[in-house]
Amino acid sequence: MLSNRKEIQVEWGDCDPAGIVYFPRFFEYFDACTNALFEKAGFRKAEMMKAYGLLGIPMVDTRAQFYAPASFGEIVTIESRIGEWGRSSFQVEHKLYKGEQLAAEGTEKRVWTVRDSLAKNGMRSEAIPAEVKDRFKK
Amino acid sequence: MLSNRKEIQVEWGDCDPAGIVYFPRFFEYFDACTNALFEKAGFRKAEMMKAYGLLGIPMVDTRAQFYAPASFGEIVTIESRIGEWGRSSFQVEHKLYKGEQLAAEGTEKRVWTVRDSLAKNGMRSEAIPAEVKDRFKK
Amino acid sequence: MLSNRKEIQVEWGDCDPAGIVYFPRFFEYFDACTNALFEKAGFRKAEMMKAYGLLGIPMVDTRAQFYAPASFGEIVTIESRIGEWGRSSFQVEHKLYKGEQLAAEGTEKRVWTVRDSLAKNGMRSEAIPAEVKDRFKK
Amino acid sequence: MLSNRKEIQVEWGDCDPAGIVYFPRFFEYFDACTNALFEKAGFRKAEMMKAYGLLGIPMVDTRAQFYAPASFGEIVTIESRIGEWGRSSFQVEHKLYKGEQLAAEGTEKRVWTVRDSLAKNGMRSEAIPAEVKDRFKK
Repeated sequence: MLSNRKEIQVEWGDCDPAGIVYFPRFFEYFDACTNALFEKAGFRKAEMMKAYGLLGIPMVDTRAQFYAPASFGEIVTIESRIGEWGRSSFQVEHKLYKGEQLAAEGTEKRVWTVRDSLAKNGMRSEAIPAEVKDRFKK
Repeated sequence: MLSNRKEIQVEWGDCDPAGIVYFPRFFEYFDACTNALFEKAGFRKAEMMKAYGLLGIPMVDTRAQFYAPASFGEIVTIESRIGEWGRSSFQVEHKLYKGEQLAAEGTEKRVWTVRDSLAKNGMRSEAIPAEVKDRFKK
Repeated sequence: MLSNRKEIQVEWGDCDPAGIVYFPRFFEYFDACTNALFEKAGFRKAEMMKAYGLLGIPMVDTRAQFYAPASFGEIVTIESRIGEWGRSSFQVEHKLYKGEQLAAEGTEKRVWTVRDSLAKNGMRSEAIPAEVKDRFKK
Repeated sequence: MLSNRKEIQVEWGDCDPAGIVYFPRFFEYFDACTNALFEKAGFRKAEMMKAYGLLGIPMVDTRAQFYAPASFGEIVTIESRIGEWGRSSFQVEHKLYKGEQLAAEGTEKRVWTVRDSLAKNGMRSEAIPAEVKDRFKK
């Protein structure tokens, strides 16, 4: 299975008055890592959206567990891979390391969502193209 | 059990190019709602931090499920309550409504964390004061 | 001239490791206040966008001066008004108070921008409708 | 004068419903670039804070002008340098490029601020150490 490693520097603006990463920022990190994983598979999100009429890959269920805080100035490494492919949904798994230490884990369940002016909220789910899934089997 | 309802207006800056709330912002909403719940119980976070030498109530495990998107300009209502008290940790439950529709749910497991210059990372967990727990039994 | 006052509670996630509002958040506050000012004039941004084919009112020039920090838990009041109307651009002025103390000021120059698939970047400026300007003269 | 170039990838979460960078995010980019400039000069902010008892380098006046929007997926380059040193304040200048095109400019006036429990708000300005200024003359 294809995986991706991305280094992220913890910025001042990511941290809260306790001096550690404000936890919603970890979800932003994971989101950027999912995009980076797709990019590694050959699908830059911006282009993929145009090519497939994608509105996005909105989240339906996400969880994160935090084992150790990360502080301003640290560089963390996030390893990401697809955990499971469904028909129109998929799960992404992220492991965040500070050096060798596993500091956080996240999972995301997302849905392949296309624009459809007739559908509720102007969007609906659609089967993920086989060619997309194929590129993650490396 | 004490519960709190907070209305939040979805701001332009909360939304992503799909025109819906960028999911990490929901975790920010929930975080603000946890603080509002404590405030309703008589503990404004800023004062509670000083009174108890609290560094914060950092997250150790959090999950959110999204059933319907929220868009720019909508006003959502979030109902929050303590799900469970542990010795030094506690769980908060949030339900986010658009009108009558349950649009998202979130749970947070947080730890009562005090400053301790001798401890690792300068912080350690501590038993939640009984007087704090008592104020949520209304 | 129409003006609007909006109270904003400084949230934990708005503050940085120095314990004060991370300055880009003030620009988010001001942005929300501009939308609130339009809403007071009768134009909710989400509806105004549909009614006029607006893509948005993007910023071309903005400045803020900070006289006193704001900390977690404080409630600030922001007074906003239109400083000047141009043909397709306009300036908004914001004054942020902590109690009676003027703590920050901001100005925004924005452009009335409509979708145009033939234009560069898919957008172009357009004259601000007279009926919009009229609603601010009260 | 020392200058620094930093590449930043525009993330999905940085963009608004118009599909372009939400302008307060540019101030976050500039803030990260100021820290990167200091790091290039040999002062990682986190270490500099400990070494000098710095609370931070809070903003007192900042302005940005936007000439062209940046969209999701683009990589922008920001060139940063010190514009002027005062006794306890300094100005940073940022130029943001999309390829060869100057897309935005920002200036920041910041103050060298140390912790002081006796001062108002627990902080006060202090003369910037000469050894810090010296490292920017390369």
